[in-house]
This record gives sequence, structure tokens and C-alpha cells, in this order.
Amino acid sequence: MIRHSSSKKDSMFYFGVDYYPEHWPEERWPDDARLMAEAGFNVVRLAEFAWSKVEPREGGYEFSWLDKAIDILGQQGMKIVLGTLTASPPPWLMSAHPDTFRVRADGVRVTFGNRREYCLNNPVYHDYTRRIVTQMAKHYGDHPTVIGWQIDNEFGDRCYCPVCARAFQNWLHRRYGSLDTLNQKWGTVFWSHTYTDWSEIPLPLTTGGSPNPGLALDFFRFSADSYVAYQQMQMDILREKCPKHFITHNFMGFMYDGLNYHALAEPLDFVSWDNYPLMMNADAARMAIAHDTMRGLKRSGFWVMEEQSGPHGWENVGPTPRPGELRLWVYQAISHGAEGIVFFRWRTSRFGTEQYWHGILDHDGIPRRRYQEVKRIGEELKRIRNMIAGSRCRAEVAMLLSYDDRFAFQIQSNNSRFSYSDHFQLYYEALHRLNVPVDIVSPRGDLSDYKLVIAPTLHITSEEIVSNLQRYVEQGGVLVITFRSGVKDEANAVVNLPLPGLLADLSGIEVVEYDSLLADGRNGLEFVIPRLSTMVRKTSCEVWCDIIEPKGAEVVARYTEDYYAGRAAVTQNNYGLGETIYVGTIGDVAFYHALMRWLLEKAGVEPLLATSRAVEVTAKERDGRALLFLLNHASQDEEVELEKRYRDLLTDKAVEGETTIPGKGVLILTQE
Amino acid sequence: MIRHSSSKKDSMFYFGVDYYPEHWPEERWPDDARLMAEAGFNVVRLAEFAWSKVEPREGGYEFSWLDKAIDILGQQGMKIVLGTLTASPPPWLMSAHPDTFRVRADGVRVTFGNRREYCLNNPVYHDYTRRIVTQMAKHYGDHPTVIGWQIDNEFGDRCYCPVCARAFQNWLHRRYGSLDTLNQKWGTVFWSHTYTDWSEIPLPLTTGGSPNPGLALDFFRFSADSYVAYQQMQMDILREKCPKHFITHNFMGFMYDGLNYHALAEPLDFVSWDNYPLMMNADAARMAIAHDTMRGLKRSGFWVMEEQSGPHGWENVGPTPRPGELRLWVYQAISHGAEGIVFFRWRTSRFGTEQYWHGILDHDGIPRRRYQEVKRIGEELKRIRNMIAGSRCRAEVAMLLSYDDRFAFQIQSNNSRFSYSDHFQLYYEALHRLNVPVDIVSPRGDLSDYKLVIAPTLHITSEEIVSNLQRYVEQGGVLVITFRSGVKDEANAVVNLPLPGLLADLSGIEVVEYDSLLADGRNGLEFVIPRLSTMVRKTSCEVWCDIIEPKGAEVVARYTEDYYAGRAAVTQNNYGLGETIYVGTIGDVAFYHALMRWLLEKAGVEPLLATSRAVEVTAKERDGRALLFLLNHASQDEEVELEKRYRDLLTDKAVEGETTIPGKGVLILTQE
Amino acid sequence: MIRHSSSKKDSMFYFGVDYYPEHWPEERWPDDARLMAEAGFNVVRLAEFAWSKVEPREGGYEFSWLDKAIDILGQQGMKIVLGTLTASPPPWLMSAHPDTFRVRADGVRVTFGNRREYCLNNPVYHDYTRRIVTQMAKHYGDHPTVIGWQIDNEFGDRCYCPVCARAFQNWLHRRYGSLDTLNQKWGTVFWSHTYTDWSEIPLPLTTGGSPNPGLALDFFRFSADSYVAYQQMQMDILREKCPKHFITHNFMGFMYDGLNYHALAEPLDFVSWDNYPLMMNADAARMAIAHDTMRGLKRSGFWVMEEQSGPHGWENVGPTPRPGELRLWVYQAISHGAEGIVFFRWRTSRFGTEQYWHGILDHDGIPRRRYQEVKRIGEELKRIRNMIAGSRCRAEVAMLLSYDDRFAFQIQSNNSRFSYSDHFQLYYEALHRLNVPVDIVSPRGDLSDYKLVIAPTLHITSEEIVSNLQRYVEQGGVLVITFRSGVKDEANAVVNLPLPGLLADLSGIEVVEYDSLLADGRNGLEFVIPRLSTMVRKTSCEVWCDIIEPKGAEVVARYTEDYYAGRAAVTQNNYGLGETIYVGTIGDVAFYHALMRWLLEKAGVEPLLATSRAVEVTAKERDGRALLFLLNHASQDEEVELEKRYRDLLTDKAVEGETTIPGKGVLILTQE
Repeated sequence: MIRHSSSKKDSMFYFGVDYYPEHWPEERWPDDARLMAEAGFNVVRLAEFAWSKVEPREGGYEFSWLDKAIDILGQQGMKIVLGTLTASPPPWLMSAHPDTFRVRADGVRVTFGNRREYCLNNPVYHDYTRRIVTQMAKHYGDHPTVIGWQIDNEFGDRCYCPVCARAFQNWLHRRYGSLDTLNQKWGTVFWSHTYTDWSEIPLPLTTGGSPNPGLALDFFRFSADSYVAYQQMQMDILREKCPKHFITHNFMGFMYDGLNYHALAEPLDFVSWDNYPLMMNADAARMAIAHDTMRGLKRSGFWVMEEQSGPHGWENVGPTPRPGELRLWVYQAISHGAEGIVFFRWRTSRFGTEQYWHGILDHDGIPRRRYQEVKRIGEELKRIRNMIAGSRCRAEVAMLLSYDDRFAFQIQSNNSRFSYSDHFQLYYEALHRLNVPVDIVSPRGDLSDYKLVIAPTLHITSEEIVSNLQRYVEQGGVLVITFRSGVKDEANAVVNLPLPGLLADLSGIEVVEYDSLLADGRNGLEFVIPRLSTMVRKTSCEVWCDIIEPKGAEVVARYTEDYYAGRAAVTQNNYGLGETIYVGTIGDVAFYHALMRWLLEKAGVEPLLATSRAVEVTAKERDGRALLFLLNHASQDEEVELEKRYRDLLTDKAVEGETTIPGKGVLILTQE
Repeated sequence: MIRHSSSKKDSMFYFGVDYYPEHWPEERWPDDARLMAEAGFNVVRLAEFAWSKVEPREGGYEFSWLDKAIDILGQQGMKIVLGTLTASPPPWLMSAHPDTFRVRADGVRVTFGNRREYCLNNPVYHDYTRRIVTQMAKHYGDHPTVIGWQIDNEFGDRCYCPVCARAFQNWLHRRYGSLDTLNQKWGTVFWSHTYTDWSEIPLPLTTGGSPNPGLALDFFRFSADSYVAYQQMQMDILREKCPKHFITHNFMGFMYDGLNYHALAEPLDFVSWDNYPLMMNADAARMAIAHDTMRGLKRSGFWVMEEQSGPHGWENVGPTPRPGELRLWVYQAISHGAEGIVFFRWRTSRFGTEQYWHGILDHDGIPRRRYQEVKRIGEELKRIRNMIAGSRCRAEVAMLLSYDDRFAFQIQSNNSRFSYSDHFQLYYEALHRLNVPVDIVSPRGDLSDYKLVIAPTLHITSEEIVSNLQRYVEQGGVLVITFRSGVKDEANAVVNLPLPGLLADLSGIEVVEYDSLLADGRNGLEFVIPRLSTMVRKTSCEVWCDIIEPKGAEVVARYTEDYYAGRAAVTQNNYGLGETIYVGTIGDVAFYHALMRWLLEKAGVEPLLATSRAVEVTAKERDGRALLFLLNHASQDEEVELEKRYRDLLTDKAVEGETTIPGKGVLILTQE
Repeated sequence: MIRHSSSKKDSMFYFGVDYYPEHWPEERWPDDARLMAEAGFNVVRLAEFAWSKVEPREGGYEFSWLDKAIDILGQQGMKIVLGTLTASPPPWLMSAHPDTFRVRADGVRVTFGNRREYCLNNPVYHDYTRRIVTQMAKHYGDHPTVIGWQIDNEFGDRCYCPVCARAFQNWLHRRYGSLDTLNQKWGTVFWSHTYTDWSEIPLPLTTGGSPNPGLALDFFRFSADSYVAYQQMQMDILREKCPKHFITHNFMGFMYDGLNYHALAEPLDFVSWDNYPLMMNADAARMAIAHDTMRGLKRSGFWVMEEQSGPHGWENVGPTPRPGELRLWVYQAISHGAEGIVFFRWRTSRFGTEQYWHGILDHDGIPRRRYQEVKRIGEELKRIRNMIAGSRCRAEVAMLLSYDDRFAFQIQSNNSRFSYSDHFQLYYEALHRLNVPVDIVSPRGDLSDYKLVIAPTLHITSEEIVSNLQRYVEQGGVLVITFRSGVKDEANAVVNLPLPGLLADLSGIEVVEYDSLLADGRNGLEFVIPRLSTMVRKTSCEVWCDIIEPKGAEVVARYTEDYYAGRAAVTQNNYGLGETIYVGTIGDVAFYHALMRWLLEKAGVEPLLATSRAVEVTAKERDGRALLFLLNHASQDEEVELEKRYRDLLTDKAVEGETTIPGKGVLILTQE
């Protein structure tokens, strides 16, 4: 269950848009503000890329244009979220300090022409950052219309410059204390990599070839930490100068795995993220997992700071959202925990790299179909706002997401067909298809409220993580772990133990061999537990096969082919009051569907509602009362069978029994 | 209709070969010259890569070998075209001036080992250029055997070095006058790219990421202009010292889109180009569009300065021309406007990067099949030369080719499946298949002689271009424009108008939405105009769908699927005495075939002759009398039905009624 | 026939493992040594990557740990092969001398992080090399347990640094004497590449574009020579200080073509190589050709210095060897000439880049299935060791392998679908499928003992090579050459002769044209010689078609399609007492099968035994008595028909008539 963190968020439901007044003549601003108000907006994000407008020359600050824009918007009832400007340093800065340009993994320094081209550890850039953020904070700290800040924009990209090399060496010094410890943990004795001076430690540049896994993992951690530190540097200024404002940062959903989002989220008041459904093929589960991941970072509601409102694209134009989709996606976001929705962007830019990243309005500024749809949402939200405000998501199933593991698999994917994210999604999708709410949380988090916990490829383990899991299972939890769990210690070395390493006790097995399947290699799987074999008798598996010797566990499924035919592939082990299921391979959709139904029964978790595949069902809870969201992702109508009598908040009509949801349509039901 | 520009071309039909005497012992030269004469040659291109033979050491010039080669060739009746040598600077030059090496788009400076490795804006290289061209011009300005010059060789490749960066900044200064104007036109306010000093403006290096479209387009224009200037620098010397000689440059056909060929062609006496049919899969239409493009640059006859004579290839050997193909391709070239044919190359080089770029003779110098075929052409040409000399191409249909648009789509292809060149060819091929002659001209050119003008994706528009089109349609012309027309202003910003922008009046429509189709996305099309729907009732479209709201125009075809089923896809609008057809999507071959037949009927254009697909028919006109070329691109015989009685120039026989053209065969018919 | 070179190899059969005691705690070493002894091992390779353990600080040497490891292993009966340490320079060395890092072909200098990152021509690295090798040699020269040395590890990778550029220029100076000669041989007149100073000569960096073929070939030769020289520098030290020890280097089989393995092998006592069957898909013929190539380098028995013992892989884990495969591969190696088998590696490393390159033991050090299989081999070898010791391979068929040709085809593959290695393998596989032993030798070697010699694409020819072949055929040999033979002289220029150049006399043909087939281009082939046309009447060919005019030769097969239908594709020419077969194209499997049967009959070569495809049969000879190895590469049982009565050494049972070989099973038969 996600608990609501105390924060500077108020109970207001924010609905608005990202706006770039600096792109358009001032005469247009009042019209834009009026159209926004008519769309039902109450919040606008401004200025995250406006550094050169605010400081056109070094030390010369110009706030008047922004003050004016804020005034015009404020008069139409908008509240303002401001960017801290650091996402796009002006040419005068970068030209004067070419060392501040980021260096890529191939050792090449980037040049001017895009955004976020800076090295985030560069001391000169730090100075400029502190100066501009301080100016902004001082100017807007007491502004009545401003309610909060977004730090920079979509943090990402590792820098491999000499400044970072020195910073990395210092970071390692702090982490390991001595070179002897570092050499021992990383196993630098391999290939004579033993370092005799901190300055000898290289970055894992691609010019260095396939790196030592310990070095590479630590560098990825160091990069992630550098972003946390850079964010904190900005937050410290804002906290001091704008104590009443909230601070957030816009994250990038589930798929992005370059930073440690748990650590980055920690100091923020709440998480925001940028939701572009058409970059996920508008796939319901892929959008859902992103929302749930974002909600799980702080176990709390979040904002969508950029919600797709038109075709996206840089050099190429993406497909256009179909009628009804903008609305559908907004309600999906809300149902998964969004407490603010900010569309990206108001009007499509006529110039710049993002010329084809469309907003609600087209280049010509004329409101057309997409504006009308947004306006409809605005009207609906005005009506139901009070009925959904303060509602919270509630899940009995958790999945454990580890950024350390993501980094480790970036370095060594173990099998070229293996993807941590894809594998994680297989489990998520099986639950999503059954309409079972899921929390996505850190393996270090409190698991006591969950009935079922799934930890796919829990690769890097520590005593801390293992104790957390043991505690959970001992007290009656049902835990699922999979192949490649327990393989690595925290220095990315393989444990000096039979696999699954520190998880052996919990799982009651020993992995005596494994077979990494190339190309289209497959094996067969057969369930031996009656409840499962009645659902699916035989199925196939791929990518990886752990050959398991039960050491107390019971066999759930076994292989049917090759020299390990008959050996265990999936096992179940009683541990304390709970049990651990170990899944040694990757199955197909039918396999996960059956497995999940069995696990839910075992754990006593009830799906929300049985529906056709196109209809997603999610739930929120408010004052002890459930809100059921029925989201039809298909273009055609879909039928659902409601066993109880409900009222639909959107139409304010009663519904029960066989009910039709129109294509791309939404019902928000409360039991009458 | 292409008019003949006044030039230093004489009425002679030139037929010859590119020859590298410096590759072979002097004792062989007389044999080569004799074999050339026996093949019917009267022109030889020499020396475009011979700088290190002419100036083996800085300032030490050696012309004697070249004089001797020219003498030997002259004695066999050859005229000489000389290269200006600058295409391959010698090692002594490049070693002494490493800054003259070109820098690639990824920021890496090239090194010695190929050709044209120089930066074309480098002042040191300019000095060397002036010096060597002056020496050549002085030495050969009055030579009785020399008739003209080829500047450098196959201009291309942009340079991204610091010298070019400064030259680009100066070019921008001249173009925009002030930084304010530049910042406003490019929209540098986007992502804080506002420049405060000209020196801050970067090149669009790949290290800078996806660039500002305005900056990128201007850099491509600057590069194109730099080539024009570099060519002019050489021309000025030659004009002064060799006033009787013609000057040309060898272009690279239709597909090459890195330079502005209209601007590059302008100062030349005539255009030459390098025709390698096997690099175009010997596809009749692809070869034809290349010839027509080259003819259109100056609206005049052209030379083929390099005509394929054997397998081409660098590391790999291409396929060998089939028997009859060399002859077929020569007559195709002539029928499309070639007034000189120079084979590349005489004898296959035994060494160097182009070791496998075969000539008429093999490495061993023995005349074999290909030589015999060339000789046959020579004999024929001798016979028919007078009958084709002075003949001109004549077309009633024009297609508008814009290098600005090609640059723009290089920067932003709008859809990863969209290619300007492929889309352009779809229209051309439909006309070619119907045996309708086409001129390919600039959108700025005079269109008054054409009955039908087709302007695919006329992306970047200006008042000048739009007025030109309006004038044409007002006076009764039929104009076709397509999706993505009128989208951009000259700074590569999207227009601040409903689409198709400045073309809205002409087309009588508004594009209210567009849908960029990913991967294998398709929609259906259905014609609503009876003349068309009887030809093709339903067909499909792909890549891009404009959703059109007619504002006076009539609907020609509409979509059949998705949420915009029933909306207009193709429209027709009366304007003045003429009409504009707007095509909002990409159809299939059947679509274009039907559309083109309808358009030709509408415009009153008659195809030359109906034939099977393999037989291309083209026409030239001489003294008011038509020459009909029938070119059979198939290996097997093809039948044609001739409604009139003709004489075939090649056989001097009468032909009429059902007539057989042998595989790879050619008829050149005049009405008796 | 391969003759046994005199060497420091003793008659002992060595069976052992590569071991890295430095990766594990000393307390574990005695257990490891005991387990090795129990597995039947008698040799261990140590220390090739242990430089930083032996010289942890510049000039501070620490041998005690290695002495101790050797003692412990020696006490269990192991002999020791030592690496010379130079394969992995320590961080302190590379950090202090950044110029010693290798430069890649793209001009980018590599950075620290892997192994063999050094420039092998760097004088500073030479100094360090001499110092560390001298220290090792002095310390272990008289050690009773040490028997030999492995120089460095898996030589490879060309360096393109400025030091190499100067070394290359000097190498060229020595090779050509004068720039005039070099310019003339390379044909630098092409594109004005004429050099006027040695310092102008560039390296063939990729930044220089497609290079002059002569320059590129010489650079590849120079790189290969540099490795020979670097190896010799180490050997000179070892020869002086350790006169009783053998010296070897571990090569990389057939597929590796970056060095001249004939030259590299020459000074060594014997060749070793690293055999990873699963990197060859465990394909019997691909493993066999690798063994035969390695045996042919010195025409002598060899060691497998690294024999796969588990899944291989860096970032990804390869498949695991199936039960029986480790044993099968060991006997295959022995049957092809291996006189030592050393498994890689003892225990899977817990850290470092090769974390997933598995050894006999898993990361946890527990002996499991793979250890048991190795142990079984050890037991068998102990039993049969005396019966196989001193046995030698004997072949009547030779294939000629030229590293010069491999380099040339790396530079110009002639056809993008052509691969020298694949083409070579087509012939080898046809022989392998018929169970005919093959020697793979240099075209310069003595061929007098062979009945059939096959020289695929003998591209670069010299008088020396051609005389060698003429001598062979004159005396009654049967020689096969193929298309693209005789095309180049030693400077990689095309010969100034009709093709096949210097081989024209031998083959009695002239190649009057060739057709390089693109993409999926094919022609048909039809045999005209009755013996062949009864086996295969019609078949197809691809990639390349020489069009042959017989000049005395008889037609064996002709083309059936295209304009050269009916022209000769394969010919046979009597020459002296022998004959030459010329194959002008690439056929399919059926073609080579038929051709090979015909050739074997012609040459009087008898296959060893007819078997199903899965069963490989090889032979060795010992004291005039044949040992027949029957190797079943399939997983299921296979039947063979034995016409004589044999004894199986492994089971010591008599076998005759229909005999079953179990899946992955092996028989070693001697006639009773």
C-alpha cells in the first residue's frame, strides 16, 4: 500500500499546461491565458528553458517579461510552477567555458546545439547554477501566484570528462577508504588491473573496451549520486528562499534506467513525470507500469508534468492521438495516482529542435480537435474534482524494482535476449491483465502490508535486502524470485556461494547449472502441481534455464527437453509462515497468466473485476470508499459485467449488469 | 520546354573517353590513341587527378608528359577536355598544411588516403588552387587541341572545420545583418540558444545533437554556396586565360542532394554529369530522371562526362553490363538531351582505390566485348550524327525540384519512411511509364510553356515561389502540390498560418490535422470523381495523411479508414483560368497511374506512344521534326504498335504497324 | 603429409588446466591442486595476466606467491607453463606512459580497462617488456617444475599510432629501397598520391577513406611483422636464460586472419591455440579446420592451450557444453594432432571482464558435472596415453592457406558476399564430410607428398609460388585453383596479364570476363563430364562467375543462364604429368560434394570410412599402424559399418560390422 507522504502538495487537483510565452509575441498572451481558463486549467509550468531570456548577458537579469506573463496568467486564475533554468545554459556561458561541455562514453566532448550539454560535476557550472537559481528564488520566493519549482528538466546522461574522473576517484576513496579494499572488492587482480594510486582509476569509456563490472557499476552509481547532489545544491537554495513552495523534478517513467530514481526522489516534495503514451504505443500496461513506478518512488501521489497532447517528434512526426485518447490517458493517470496533470505543450513551437513536438494548439495557434477534447476533460474535472480529491491507490501486490540491478544488467546483460525491463514487465502485465493493482517499490522498503511480493532477477543482494525479504516471508508473505537472483554482491562480483546465493535459504534450492539459450533456443515446461497443470499443461520457455536441485523446496514445473528434461524449473518453498516461489526461466504469456492466478489464490488477493483485454480496471480509495476506474483502451465499444450496482461519477448515472463502455471511454464507479 | 542556352558548346556531337595516360607507359599511348580513333572517338578528358604529375614538387611544374599525350591523341583526331587538377592535392601539399584537411560532421578531421580531402574554404588551399589553375590555364589557354575544362571533380562533402565555422558566421552576418534578426528567424529563444556574439554560433556537428532546423538549413546553404564560390574562383582564372574554352563541371545526377545544383550550374557553359546505370540497377526511369534533372539545371543540353563502360566498384566489383546495354544507355542519354558522351574510363587501372572501377578495356589492355560494343556505337553515331545534331528535348510537363527542400528533409524527414527523392520519383515514374516527356526545373523558373506542373512536397515557400505558381495557374496551368507543401518559411520555421500556408489560396483547402503513419501503417483511399473511380475504385495510402477541409476546393479522393474516414485526401481547386490539385498522402502505383492519366487528360497532354513497361519512348525535335527514340530495357524482344509510318535512322529502314524491338535494342524513328 | 618438427616437446601427453591462483585465497590452493591431480592433470599454465602481482610497483618484484603456487602444484605432480606477463600491463605503467596505448584504425587512442591495450612498437613498452621477461626468465630458468613459456597471450589488433606510422615508413624504406620504387609498385600516380618524402606516407586509417590497396596490404604485413619482432624480442631473452624450456604462443585457430600465422609460428618450438567449440557452434568441420590449420603452421603436432570447459562469455553467457561434449572435443583435438590439452579455466572468476567465461568449476568452486566429465577423460587418457603418444596425422590432400590473400580480401572483398574463409571452408567441408584428412599449408611449402592440392582464390601470386605449383603438377599432382586466383602481384596491383595471370599456363585458360553477382543473384551450372553429370546434372552457382575461354583446357562444367550460358565455368588442364582444375565460380554443397568425389578418384585418394554426416572419422599413425577416431557429434546414437575387425582403445573391446556410437561418443580403433 502506498502511503501519502507529507508534502507541500495541497489537496487541490491541478490541471494545466506547459507554456512558453517567450516563443510568442506578448500580444498573444492574453488570448492564450483566456483559452487556458476556458479549458479549465488552474496551473501553468513556465521557464525551464528560459535561461537566456532571464540572463541574456552574464550577470544581467531580466525578469520583467516573466513577471508580465505570470501576471496575465494569474489574472485568469492560473498558479505557476517555475523551472530552475539550468536545463539549457545560454551560448554565452558555454562558449566562455568549453570545459563545461559533457563528454560522452566514447570520450568525445559534445558541442553546442541541443540542451543539457553540461557536465554536472563541473565547478564552473556549479557556480553559474547557484547564481541563477538564487536570482530566481529571490525574485519569486514570495510571489503570490507561484506555488512551486521543477528542478532542471529530465535529468539523465552520464558525463565522462576529466573533472568527472577526478570526482569519481574521490567518490571511490570515500566509499572504499583504501585502495586495497577497492582492489579486493572489484577483483582488480584480474588482468593486472590492480591500482596503486587513486588517479590511475579510469572511467569505463568505450575506448577502454569491456570494463571490470565492479568499476562500471560504481561509475553508474557515482553518476546517479552526482545528479542527486546537483539537485540538492539547487534545492538548498530554494528551501531557504522559497520555504512555502514545493519542489519537484520531472522523471521519465519506468523505461528510463540511467539514474537511481529512488535516491533522486527522496528529497523532493513529490515526484513528477513526463507521460508520452504514443512513445509507448499507447499500450495500457506500459503506461500503467510507468505510473505505478512513479507512484512507488515516494509511495505517494505524483504529478504528470508533461502529458502528451499531440503528435510527438523531433526530426519525425509521430502519430496523432485518436479522438478520446487524451481524455482516456488523463483518467488512467489519475486512477494510478496522479494528483496533477500538466499538458505538454500549449502551442506547437514554430522553431527549434522540437518543432514537431506538438502541443494542444497547432503551430498556427488555432484551437481545433485536441483543444476541444482537453476542454471537455476540464469541464468534467471541475464537476468530479471534489469526488476524487484525496483518493489514494491501494495495492496488495508489490513488485521490487532495483536501480542497482538495472545498472548491473546494462553492464552485463547475461544473455543478449535478456532485458531487465522486459522481464519485469512480463510479471507486471500478467497482473495488469487480471486487473490487480500493483505497487512498485524498492527491495529495501517495508513490505509488511503486501500479500504477494514479486522480485524479478533480484541480482545484487545484500544482507539488508535479504533480511527484509526473510522478515516478510517469515511473517506469512508470498515471495516470488527468479533466475539470476542472488548472483552478485554489492561490488558486482559473483557471490562465493552456490546460487541463488544469499537467497538459498529462502528459496530452498540450489541452482546446480544454468543454460543460456542463444538466438531462438527454447525448452519446454510442464507444470507438476495439479492446480497449475489444469490451467496450462505444457508451455515453452526461453532465454535462460536454471537447472534446479530442490533442497527442501517442492517442484512446481520442470523442463521437458534437452539433457535436463525432468529437472526442476520452478519451485515452491515454505519458509516461516510464508513461502518463496523460484522461477528459473522465462515462460510465455500463458505461463505467467497461470502462474499469477495460482499465486493470487495462494496469497488471497482478489482481482478488481474480470474484463476483456482492452478494458483496464484500477481502483482508488477515498474516505474508505472505493472508486473503480474502467478504462477502455480499444477504439470499439467493450462490454463489462458489473455484479454490483454503481454510480458513474462522470455521467452521474447508475450502472449495473451488462454495461457498455464506448471506444476510448471511461467509467468512474462508486458503489451506491 | 527546355530552351537551349547560348554557350561555348559547338554543334559537334562529342563521343569519347576519360583517359589517364599517366597510369600507363608512354609506349602504350599511341596504341591507345589508335584504338580510340577506331572506336569513333573525337574527345578525351584528361588530367583531373594529375596534380602530382604536373606539380611533383611545390612550384616545379612539368607539362611535357601531358603535352605529349595531348599531341598523340590530337594526331588521332581527338579534342581534349582538361581537369583543373584540384580534386586530388598531392601528399607534399597536404602534409605541409594539415589544417587543409576537411572535418567531418562528427568533428573528426580526415586524413590522407583518398581524394578531395580538402576544406574548400581554407585560404591556404585557395592559394594553391589559384596557383595550379593559373599554371594550367596559361599553359593550355591557346592549345589548338584543347576545347574546354572540367572544374575539379564531382563536388560534394560538407566541411565542419573551424575555418568553415568562421566563414559560416560571416556568411550569416551578411545574410541576416544583425544577430537580433538571426535569433528571431531561427527562433533561438527555443532552449536558450539566443546568440549574443557571432562567434558563438556553432556548426551543426553530430556531437551537438539534433540541431535547430534554421541553423542546419543555413549551414547546408552555406556549404552549397562555398562550392559555388570555389568553382567561381577557378572559373575567373579560366575565363581570363582561356576565353575560347568552355567550362563545365561533372555533376552526380538526380539522387545526389548535398549541394544546390541550380546555383552550381548557373555560371557554367553547360552541365556534365557522371552516369552509372548499374548504380541505379539499370532502372530505366531512374536513369531517365537523372538525365532530365541534369538537362533542367540550365534548361539545356548536357554532356555525360563519365558514362559507365564496365563493372564499377571500389572494394567490391559490380555486375558487368549485359551485351547491348552500353549502346542502349548511350541512346537513352542522347534522347534525354546529351550532346556529348564520354566513357569512364579507357582502361581499368591496375592500382589505386578504383582498381575495380572498370573501363572499356580490362586491366590487361586487351579490347574485348565491351570495346566492340563501344566501337559499334561509334560507327552508328558517325552515320546518324548529322541527323541528331542540334535536336532538342521538348516537354509539356514540368516537375519542380528544390534543393532547399531536399536540405530541409535531410534535417527533418518528417516521417522515417518519407524520402523526398523517392516521393518525387513516384510522380516521375508514373509519367515515364506513360511515355510522357518531363522537364525538371526550379520552382523559381518560368513555367509558362508547360501544360502541367507537379511540385511534390514544396516544403519551403517564399512570396517569390508562390507568385510564380499563382501566375502559372491564373493563366490556365494545371498545378499539383502535395502534403508538407507550404509548411516552412525560408528560415526553416513553420509558417504562422493554417496549412498549406502561402499555398492555401491556390489550393482552396485547409489542412486541419495530419497523421504520420508509423511502420507499416496504412489507410485506404477512394476516388469520388467518376473519371478516376472507374480507373481505380479503392486503393491504399501510407506514410502521411493530411486531413483536409475544403475551402472552395472539390474532393477528388477521401480516406476510408480510421477516425478520419470520409475526410478529403485529394482535392481540386479552380484558380484563375487554371486549377490546383492537392494530394494529401502517398498512394500506390495504381493510384499515381490513374491520377496521372486524369491529369494529362485535364491538361491536354498526349503521351508519345503506348508501350509495354520495358520500352521507354522519348522524343527530340530538330528543325520542327520529331525524333522518336524507342528503347527496349528488357533482355527479350518487345513488340510495339506504330500507328504511323516511320523510318529508323539506325537501320535506315521503314517501319510501321507491329514492330519488334530486340532485347536491349533501340529504334530512332522519324516520320516519313 | 605433416612431418614432425624437432622441438623441445617431449613425448609426454600433457593434460591440464589454466589456473589463476592469484584470484583465490592461498588456503584454497592445496584443495585445487588435489582436485587437479584427481582429474588426471599433469600440467598447469600460470601467470600470463599476473604482471601487477609480480611487479606491483615499478621495479619491485614479488615472486614468492608464484613460487608457492608452483610448489603446491608441483607437489601434486603438475608441470608448469608460464606466461611472460606482457599481455596485461599494470595501471602504474600505462598511467605513467599514456603514449603506449594503442591507437585504433579510426585514429582514436584506447584507454585503460581491458588487456593488451599497448602499442607493440612503442620503445618504452619494449623496455618494460625486456625488463619483466628478463626477471621472469632469470627467476624460473632453472626451476625444476617449469617446462616452458607462453609468449604474451593471443596476439592480435593492429596499432595505428604515430610511433607505428614512423616504424611503418622505415619498414617501407627497407622493403622498397626508394620512393620511386614504392610509388611505382603501389601505383601512387592514381589520384596524385605520389610521395616525395617517406614521412608523407599515411597509415590506412578509416579517416582516410578507402585506401590504396598496396599501402593497405603493406601496412597489414608490417603489423604482422611487428608481432613477429615483438615475439622474437621476448624469445631471445628466454632462449638465453631458459635454454631447456620450450616456447610457444597461443594462436586463435582458422578464423582469425589479422596476423601472418605462418611467420609467427616459425620460431616457436610448437604452436598452441585456444579452442572454443561453442564459439563455432560446436560444428565438427569448423573445429576440424581450426585444428588442421594450427597443425599446418609448423607441419607438426600442437597444444590446445585453452580448451573450452564451460559456458563462455563476457557480458553474455554462452550455452553450456552438453554432457559428453568436453570429452568429444578433447578426442577430436587429439585426432587432429593435439599433443597437449589445457582446459580454460580451472574455476570461474568471480570478478573482472571475464566473469562469465566459465571454467571447469563454477564461481563457488564446487566440482559438478563438468568436473566429473573432465575427470573421466583424465582416467581414460591415463589408460590409453601410451597407445596414442607419438602418433602423427597423415594426409594425402593439402589445402593452401595464404595470409597475404586474407589481408588482400580484407581490403577488397571483391564481392560483398565473398569471404575468403567461407570459400576456403566450402572445399574443406566437402573433404571433411567424406572423411578425408587434410593438411592446411602455405603455398610456399613442399607439396611433393600430396596427391591432391586445393588452392582457393590464390589471389596474390609470385614467381616463387607459381614455380612451386608448376613443379608439383609437372610431377603428377592434381591441383585445384579457383576464380580470383592470379589476379594480383605482390604489391596488390592487378597483374598486367590476361587472367589468371601467372597461373594461365598451368590452367590452360583465359578468363575473358567476369560477372560479380549482387544480392541473391545466381546462375546455373551443368557438368559436361559424364562421371560428374551422373552425380549432379544441374546445380546453381553464385557470388562470382568467371567467363572462361579454354586455351587447351577441357570444359568440366558450363553456365546455363544469362548471356554467357554455355560458356565454361570449370575446366581441367593437363600439365606435365599432372593436371589443373580451375573452378570459376561458387557452387552449392552438392556441387562440391560431386567435384570432390571426382577429384579424389582422379588423385587416387581413399576416404577413411563412409559414415553418416554426424560421425567424423580421422586417423593418426603410430609406428606404421593406423589409429581410427570415430567421433559422433550428434546427441543421438549413430551407426557405422566397419568392414574390418578393430579393437577400441577406450573400451578395450573388439568391434566390427554394424557398430553403434552413442550420442557424443568416441571410438578409437586399431586394426586387430
